Amino acid sequence: MEESLQRLDAFFNPKSVAVIGATVKPGKPGQVIFKNLATSKQRGIYKGELYPVNPGEESLLGLKCYKTLSDCPGDVDLVAIIVPAKAVASVMEQAVTKHVKAAVIITAGFKEIGNKAMEDEVVSIAKRGNIRLLGPNCLGVFYSKSGIDTLFLPEMKTLSTGKEVVATPRPMFGSIAMITQSGAFGSAALDYLTGRQMGVSKFVSFGNKCDVSETEMLNYLMHDDETKVILVYLEDIKNGREFMKVAKECTLKKPVVMIKSGRSNAGARAAASHTGAIAGSDKVYDAVFEQCGIIRAKSMEEFFDYGKALAMQPPAEGSNIGILTDAGGPGVMTVDELETQGLTANHFEKETDDKFTKLQQEGKILMIAATHNPVDLTASVTDEQFTISADIMFQDPHTYGIIFLGLHHMPGLKENYIDDIAALTHKYHKPIVMVDIGETEMALFTRGRFDRLNVPAFGSPEDAARAMKALVWYGAYLKKNGAYEKYVKAFKSSAAPSHVQTKE
Amino acid sequence: MEESLQRLDAFFNPKSVAVIGATVKPGKPGQVIFKNLATSKQRGIYKGELYPVNPGEESLLGLKCYKTLSDCPGDVDLVAIIVPAKAVASVMEQAVTKHVKAAVIITAGFKEIGNKAMEDEVVSIAKRGNIRLLGPNCLGVFYSKSGIDTLFLPEMKTLSTGKEVVATPRPMFGSIAMITQSGAFGSAALDYLTGRQMGVSKFVSFGNKCDVSETEMLNYLMHDDETKVILVYLEDIKNGREFMKVAKECTLKKPVVMIKSGRSNAGARAAASHTGAIAGSDKVYDAVFEQCGIIRAKSMEEFFDYGKALAMQPPAEGSNIGILTDAGGPGVMTVDELETQGLTANHFEKETDDKFTKLQQEGKILMIAATHNPVDLTASVTDEQFTISADIMFQDPHTYGIIFLGLHHMPGLKENYIDDIAALTHKYHKPIVMVDIGETEMALFTRGRFDRLNVPAFGSPEDAARAMKALVWYGAYLKKNGAYEKYVKAFKSSAAPSHVQTKE
Repeated sequence: MEESLQRLDAFFNPKSVAVIGATVKPGKPGQVIFKNLATSKQRGIYKGELYPVNPGEESLLGLKCYKTLSDCPGDVDLVAIIVPAKAVASVMEQAVTKHVKAAVIITAGFKEIGNKAMEDEVVSIAKRGNIRLLGPNCLGVFYSKSGIDTLFLPEMKTLSTGKEVVATPRPMFGSIAMITQSGAFGSAALDYLTGRQMGVSKFVSFGNKCDVSETEMLNYLMHDDETKVILVYLEDIKNGREFMKVAKECTLKKPVVMIKSGRSNAGARAAASHTGAIAGSDKVYDAVFEQCGIIRAKSMEEFFDYGKALAMQPPAEGSNIGILTDAGGPGVMTVDELETQGLTANHFEKETDDKFTKLQQEGKILMIAATHNPVDLTASVTDEQFTISADIMFQDPHTYGIIFLGLHHMPGLKENYIDDIAALTHKYHKPIVMVDIGETEMALFTRGRFDRLNVPAFGSPEDAARAMKALVWYGAYLKKNGAYEKYVKAFKSSAAPSHVQTKE
Repeated sequence: MEESLQRLDAFFNPKSVAVIGATVKPGKPGQVIFKNLATSKQRGIYKGELYPVNPGEESLLGLKCYKTLSDCPGDVDLVAIIVPAKAVASVMEQAVTKHVKAAVIITAGFKEIGNKAMEDEVVSIAKRGNIRLLGPNCLGVFYSKSGIDTLFLPEMKTLSTGKEVVATPRPMFGSIAMITQSGAFGSAALDYLTGRQMGVSKFVSFGNKCDVSETEMLNYLMHDDETKVILVYLEDIKNGREFMKVAKECTLKKPVVMIKSGRSNAGARAAASHTGAIAGSDKVYDAVFEQCGIIRAKSMEEFFDYGKALAMQPPAEGSNIGILTDAGGPGVMTVDELETQGLTANHFEKETDDKFTKLQQEGKILMIAATHNPVDLTASVTDEQFTISADIMFQDPHTYGIIFLGLHHMPGLKENYIDDIAALTHKYHKPIVMVDIGETEMALFTRGRFDRLNVPAFGSPEDAARAMKALVWYGAYLKKNGAYEKYVKAFKSSAAPSHVQTKE
């Protein structure tokens, strides 16, 4: 590993961590973070040393507590700093003496509210000691494999009634990395990703990004074998030229999906008062992202939907898409959105038509089924009809991907089509995305099962059409840059569903 | 009630129903529909007579079975017809003799696959007997209050493993009516509405609409006191002039949200092969809807989100919106989408600024909070801070609605703000919509609780911004037509949350 990457690695794989401002007072950030790490150590996930630092305590959660960072015995790789802003510089001085490698400054109250000098001082101390900084005003790092979790949002909350509820869950391990300038969006994202069973490789919230910024983090994740897709939330970009260079290299290896907020004038103004971001013209960002192969999401749902589709399916080689359904209306809605997104749903090749005609003559699908794309098997559909139809569509030479609207409601449909369709996808290098509409038991089961089998499932026709657009756009970008074959080969040969793992 | 409305009322409140093609063979439409009605009668919900008709059976589910419709004793208000297409005309002949008022023809295989003559024959028989027809090729009617349910999609399904699961649930009673040309979209909608706790007043799927069409149904629902909002899915419109006339009248009384699919060229082609719809230019539809006050949704999520917002909140008097949050990033995303939708999030009036300054000086909200819209109370937010801030924002004279992003993750936040904010809304006539991001326990609880208290809650900033757009657009339409005051007065005085009722 390169020296620069190794330095960043101390955020994710430290051999020892000191928590400056550790406490057991309920609800305090210093309590949440220290407890995260202590629990993780107790369970044997975090295998390094853990030093709580708090001048007023002898011991915390059974671990000896130290008065200052300097008092901690042995080396300290990583410090998490939760003390008031004014006290941070002095902690950093000790960190330099201790040869600390990396520091996460959770504390707010720096540049974002005008205290630029205070932030500059901290940065200059860190530079002197060659210490890498995340923050200030951030959540820091969550990496489930090593047990590092500097998030001050508690997993569980106690309501006024005394009831304990899941509040900010940590997602399971998986192949999606996320880096974010907004901590609040980051914690919300973790909640969303957990609930939707999307696994996360590494999570980083860098707040004011006084040192480590999006560019370096992108570079780190580009080299991270555990990460297949990178999700990025930004309000501004620090060093445009360097960022573009790294992004261009990265997107040939793995997809990068980004929300760059402040895209409207009023939004840019709001962003400025949020993180002090100076946003620049939004059209410039559009152009830059397109040039660098970054897939820009314009809404939260697009952001996660694109990430899910790209983590589970290969990109498409062309923009003409086949639609397979048992639901005529939703089929029409899908075509509408595909066309809005610049994709097509053209009629099949004659050869494909002939295959469907033969199926109808043999009584394997109904004569009343529509077979010219969309293929609509009607409410009389069966599991088998779906699978044989999908197989034929995959073989159509000018159909580059399939949107499968397998609405579970039809009486003749059981659940067998789920595994059968998923098995079929392994025969082809074309992407497939799935839709089932509904928010009760069977819909949730159907989408969940498809997801677990790497067929990304969505709750509406439009979500699926937009996800397919991301697969088509990324495929076109890779092809234009001569990287398509290599990417798809690597994608298809990569070990099984690492992005979706069942919790043990 | 007018004569024409009374005739339609036989679909929802018949005194006697005959099911032509009733059976107990599992999975058959005739079994599902008959069982729906028999169960409903057994439970005392459907209070009328129920006659299964099947020449091969003596009795079904304990009810005497009749060989033909003519054999049924006494009057028959409504017939549900599930026999093969060729046999439908003969059933209709008997219906004329029996003075049946209304018929739901579930059977497919008519005009939609080219059998226009067969459909015309059925229509002409019905006309002779003054019988109103729904269908053919439809699901018919679901009305929970009278227990009428002609949907052939079973509520429960048995999987291959033998496990029973909820497949097509019926939603609770509420204030949202839905009429749909696509049965598949209709059943999916019921699944969605049930899972999202949105109550339904009346549901109608009219398929080929050989007789009763969208226009008459809109007229019926306009006069229906149980319905506050009407959701409509269409692929074409039968009689444009008449439709516009009724729609214009209806939208002054209650909002109509519509998906008109086939909005793209390819989608229109797909719609033609689905229902034989001849779509016409989509721009014409846009213009017509705007003129008639119909709110057009361009995606499934917009469709339901608009419906929910309009059922729970009054329309806005202006397009400038206040944003209250504890999450800076999502606040920026909200502003972005508001501006995209043509709304604004301008700074407050001086008076409002002064109130916030005073709160900061008194230590009631933090000095680091942003207070110029968006109001960002930061991760240090408390329940009380949210409520006092919302109160001030409601009072700002040029803030016409509030988007409240109360992300539950912040450590100092309990659940008290939910009921407090909801209580506050009763003091004002301005709309509020809520966002909490996440898909696990506390997020689901928070959104669910807000929904039950009539503050529509959404899972993403953009969904909320679009829902607010619907409230602003409808408010402007009502004002332009001099109907705003009357509508809001009726809305505010209408009995409590009839659209969201807890199942007993």
